[in-house]
Amino acid sequence: MRLRHKPYAQDKLLEYKQYVVEKPEESKGKWTERFGKPQPLHIEIGCGKGRFIIEMAKRYPDINFIGIELQTSVIVSALEKQIDEQLPNLQLMQVNAKDLRDYFEPGEVDRIYLTFSDPWPKNRHEKRRLTYKSFLSVYETILNDEGELHFKTDNQKLFEYSLTSFSKYDAVLEKVYLDLHNSEVEDNVMTEYEEKFSKKGNRIYKAVVMFK
Amino acid sequence: MRLRHKPYAQDKLLEYKQYVVEKPEESKGKWTERFGKPQPLHIEIGCGKGRFIIEMAKRYPDINFIGIELQTSVIVSALEKQIDEQLPNLQLMQVNAKDLRDYFEPGEVDRIYLTFSDPWPKNRHEKRRLTYKSFLSVYETILNDEGELHFKTDNQKLFEYSLTSFSKYDAVLEKVYLDLHNSEVEDNVMTEYEEKFSKKGNRIYKAVVMFK
Repeated sequence: MRLRHKPYAQDKLLEYKQYVVEKPEESKGKWTERFGKPQPLHIEIGCGKGRFIIEMAKRYPDINFIGIELQTSVIVSALEKQIDEQLPNLQLMQVNAKDLRDYFEPGEVDRIYLTFSDPWPKNRHEKRRLTYKSFLSVYETILNDEGELHFKTDNQKLFEYSLTSFSKYDAVLEKVYLDLHNSEVEDNVMTEYEEKFSKKGNRIYKAVVMFK
Repeated sequence: MRLRHKPYAQDKLLEYKQYVVEKPEESKGKWTERFGKPQPLHIEIGCGKGRFIIEMAKRYPDINFIGIELQTSVIVSALEKQIDEQLPNLQLMQVNAKDLRDYFEPGEVDRIYLTFSDPWPKNRHEKRRLTYKSFLSVYETILNDEGELHFKTDNQKLFEYSLTSFSKYDAVLEKVYLDLHNSEVEDNVMTEYEEKFSKKGNRIYKAVVMFK
């Protein structure tokens, strides 16, 4: 993603504290309080400009959503959408995926979405891929026993890598889609990337994974 | 595959007992005697007309190969190739994959090839797919601890199914190729189907699987 310099972004994120979680460690174990309604909790790691998480939150008002994105200049676009929509079941936060155990109690999360994560194609960057075993260990901790990881990408190499990474970690592939847009899945919500890359003719891959 | 009626086929299979194993149960635990040379043992389940297994046996003289095929009118084509080639490290046999424990001691096999197996697309035929759990259990028994299952297909649905079946069985995906012919694999030997379907533009999928 091309990052535009947005000098106003940091101020805006600080201004809308009702939508952007400033101290997520204080909500650990009590996210229901922050949302006000006890509902299942789904988080997206790397929500980018927020198209997916905004649409999900609109479509599923009975689920609480958190969009997580590190880049200030990107998450501000998700915030702008939320300022328009004012969805009560959506929060945003700027944290690193490796630290999620600091913000969620074990089993507090019902579903994790990984959507079009950075493929980090070089072997020496394997540890940065969000499906590397150290990240899977974080997801396993914060997901509850019935929790699922939903992973979507158009990057063939990342998907191949991730299938083997899940398998070696002993996670279970519940479902695999090797051409999601030509499958029987009906309720697929697209991300910005997904629309762009599928228009180019790229296949979209998806896996649903559970931890034992 | 279209099966042609070949009335001479059964006679021919009986005639060439040096290439077609008549009583495989008698070789159980002592396949080395049949081949004469103590070498790793690789078997192909569903070898069809034998193009793949013949080429593999030519390319790897230090490995003993067994091509397994049920259909008389098909395996006879593999036999005809072997009559021409007279490869000392290749045997053929007509048996059912579900019965392989009757013909191999636990751990006697070093590698199993499943190539372009029948996809059995209907849900009610799931149990017939060669990657269904009951077959995986057979493979797990006869493969040794370092043994690998090499699975290749152009059928997207079968590959999706098989990835989840391997995973749920607790087998480990060592490698996954989502477009084998455009990958960095250099020593791929094609089957008859593989050449035909890849020429049509179908992607070829491959997984290498180990049992714990």
